[in-house]
Amino acid sequence: MERGPGAGAGRWGPVSCVLTGASRGFGRSLARLLAPRFGEGSVLLLLARSAAPLADLAAELRGSAAGLRVECVAADLGCEQGLRQATAALREVLPSGPPGRLLLINNAGSLGDISKSFLDLTDPDEINSYFAFNVTSALCLTSTALQTFGKRPGSSRTVVNISSLCALKPFKSWALYCSGKASRDMMFQVLALEEPDIRVLNYAPGPLDTDMQLLARTKTGDPEMRQQFQSLQESRKLIDCTVSAQKLVNLLEEDTFPSGAHVDFYDI
Amino acid sequence: MERGPGAGAGRWGPVSCVLTGASRGFGRSLARLLAPRFGEGSVLLLLARSAAPLADLAAELRGSAAGLRVECVAADLGCEQGLRQATAALREVLPSGPPGRLLLINNAGSLGDISKSFLDLTDPDEINSYFAFNVTSALCLTSTALQTFGKRPGSSRTVVNISSLCALKPFKSWALYCSGKASRDMMFQVLALEEPDIRVLNYAPGPLDTDMQLLARTKTGDPEMRQQFQSLQESRKLIDCTVSAQKLVNLLEEDTFPSGAHVDFYDI
Repeated sequence: MERGPGAGAGRWGPVSCVLTGASRGFGRSLARLLAPRFGEGSVLLLLARSAAPLADLAAELRGSAAGLRVECVAADLGCEQGLRQATAALREVLPSGPPGRLLLINNAGSLGDISKSFLDLTDPDEINSYFAFNVTSALCLTSTALQTFGKRPGSSRTVVNISSLCALKPFKSWALYCSGKASRDMMFQVLALEEPDIRVLNYAPGPLDTDMQLLARTKTGDPEMRQQFQSLQESRKLIDCTVSAQKLVNLLEEDTFPSGAHVDFYDI
Repeated sequence: MERGPGAGAGRWGPVSCVLTGASRGFGRSLARLLAPRFGEGSVLLLLARSAAPLADLAAELRGSAAGLRVECVAADLGCEQGLRQATAALREVLPSGPPGRLLLINNAGSLGDISKSFLDLTDPDEINSYFAFNVTSALCLTSTALQTFGKRPGSSRTVVNISSLCALKPFKSWALYCSGKASRDMMFQVLALEEPDIRVLNYAPGPLDTDMQLLARTKTGDPEMRQQFQSLQESRKLIDCTVSAQKLVNLLEEDTFPSGAHVDFYDI
């Protein structure tokens, strides 16, 4: 990425940044790495379901970077009202942010009920809710952010989808997660194709040492899969969120990925 | 596929078959090819939105195969009530059908509003409705059918997902269709992995000469894409539904595809 005039080493120019799933795990680590890089006048909009940790993070980040405005909205992106709150926040915050660079990171996501097999997934409400949160909200937030930010001469726009190996490869007990991630990857590939001026990245962060992995190794219905997740932890192969978030930051700084590409933590 | 004892040349044994999107296009052609192959005592449950053409097809098929019971349910699989009607029909019809072979074909699908680009897709209701019809209903019908049919010694169960090149490759103006098809392919790959006894096929029928192609070449927002669809028609490259449905029937008869595979019309 270009650096703004007068920016210090490793500092970017002013950025309008939106990050979902910001309150914990990978999202929080990424926010902590990004905030100090954002140049004077940047604005960072954080979204997540949990109000308290989100407010804590916002307060922390405000102290970490001079001239950075941090806004946060606690909203459940899986429900209509929450998504409406989030898109309203985008429409309010983005026009007041710096016009030169937009960075949108779709990180929010959920596993679904991984205790269930495909054959147990008979409840349409459960499945519709899963897709509303994991697919629809990412699409709506992205289209709204891009519409609101607009196409301005000389500006750069980058959209990141936090993806997974599950977007490419099926795993037992993970029908919803795999199909949601496959759907998102494809959706963002279409965006890359339609909008050659927008940089689009599907980043698979690797097996992270997060609450989601705790669920994976304790709740996955298939015993073999559950054992594999346990082994990942026991053999210390889980990746620290900050390590993976740093790789994403590097990818964004180098800015050489083909737009629409799926890039895995282990590829780089 | 095994043939039932005493079956004539090209006739299968008794089958319990469910086909969605049966009233026109590929689904109707497939129904017409399958029905005469089904052995005495078979049951064929046809689902589609349009009641009249569905009833016409059912009447036609009843006359085409001796000892074939044809049931039809007109239901919109994209809405809660329609999906409930469809799953109720499965629960009623399947237990009374032959127990030796289940064939479920998830053919129903829609393009979505292809006049829109990704950036126009800002309405969550539109996107949720798209996924409810194109992804959730296929998952719920499949899990319900498999649960209802059950696992019986010596029986065979085959699940077909009517897929598309769009499951693998992004196309401009087709964000919903591509991501829905990618999602379905992945979902059925998970099923194949979880249930080695079930034969799962993602079949991409090629560019068919259907109402959907008419929409594609007249409504696709991206002019270049629209032109490509027009050229397909002008150069007579569109595939007759019966020709493609016959290839699917051949695949099912040979029954040598790796379970979970994506097989394209042009591959075979």
